[in-house]
Amino acid sequence: MKEISEKMEDDRSLLIRAIKLAEDGIANGGGPFGAVIAVKGQILAEAVNRVVANSDPTAHAEVQAIREAASLLKSHDLKNCTLYCSCEPCPMCLGAIYWAGIGKVVYASDRHDAELAGFSDRYIYDEIILSPSDRHISFVRIENTGGEEVFKIWEKHENRITY
Amino acid sequence: MKEISEKMEDDRSLLIRAIKLAEDGIANGGGPFGAVIAVKGQILAEAVNRVVANSDPTAHAEVQAIREAASLLKSHDLKNCTLYCSCEPCPMCLGAIYWAGIGKVVYASDRHDAELAGFSDRYIYDEIILSPSDRHISFVRIENTGGEEVFKIWEKHENRITY
Repeated sequence: MKEISEKMEDDRSLLIRAIKLAEDGIANGGGPFGAVIAVKGQILAEAVNRVVANSDPTAHAEVQAIREAASLLKSHDLKNCTLYCSCEPCPMCLGAIYWAGIGKVVYASDRHDAELAGFSDRYIYDEIILSPSDRHISFVRIENTGGEEVFKIWEKHENRITY
Repeated sequence: MKEISEKMEDDRSLLIRAIKLAEDGIANGGGPFGAVIAVKGQILAEAVNRVVANSDPTAHAEVQAIREAASLLKSHDLKNCTLYCSCEPCPMCLGAIYWAGIGKVVYASDRHDAELAGFSDRYIYDEIILSPSDRHISFVRIENTGGEEVFKIWEKHENRITY
């Protein structure tokens, strides 16, 4: 655990910390989003949105915090962690949360608040439920290219680790 | 553009290249997924799944390729890029694709093939459409914590760059 928090904190105070990170991040060239990952009330990782600052469209606060926490724990599995985020996670971050096996997510504002501030969260939630061919971004499937065979090779691979 | 491809390639051959990366990635400790990002048929970035190898739950081939391409272009905006991926992007990668503004996505196998091979893609697609309180992972909103105020600070911030 980092020195920044040796004491146990409750959900509300950890969420307020994530919001404070978001506010501080704006002044430092970040987007208005912050995230904290804690284990049993102790802070493990903190992050802010760095999309523009880092030229990295995936550098949302939640993704940055998950990457940091996983690196610290030397594991892709964050099942004992709680994620606190200033705003409801977007679909990208929700996917990252599921892949990481995060135990619980606590958030303050939501996709509609983000939309009013000019962010595409709600739009992407609306797009993701469409069939691939109906989306604004063109999703084209090409068959008979060997895509399924890769999974067969994977299933026969002795050292595979499933997640 | 990288030296690996100076010539123009068509969608089918670039997709087959992404599938070959997936296959090669398995032998090198990666998951069975590969991705290529190209601009007008010229390869800009290539990546494989490194979730377990890198202890990074976000290290899907598509996310890795997007991060690499954005870093090379020094921009979070990949609107002129096409993404080729061995399997249909999961919700996390779909979100990353939208945030990056990728122009077109070409893929081979889909979420159902991935499920048969033991991956959670389809499950996460099913979870994302549920209301936050109905999901298997607990999503808890706490109000009156200042979350909406951060967006108001953002809107007044002179140097903000929207994306």
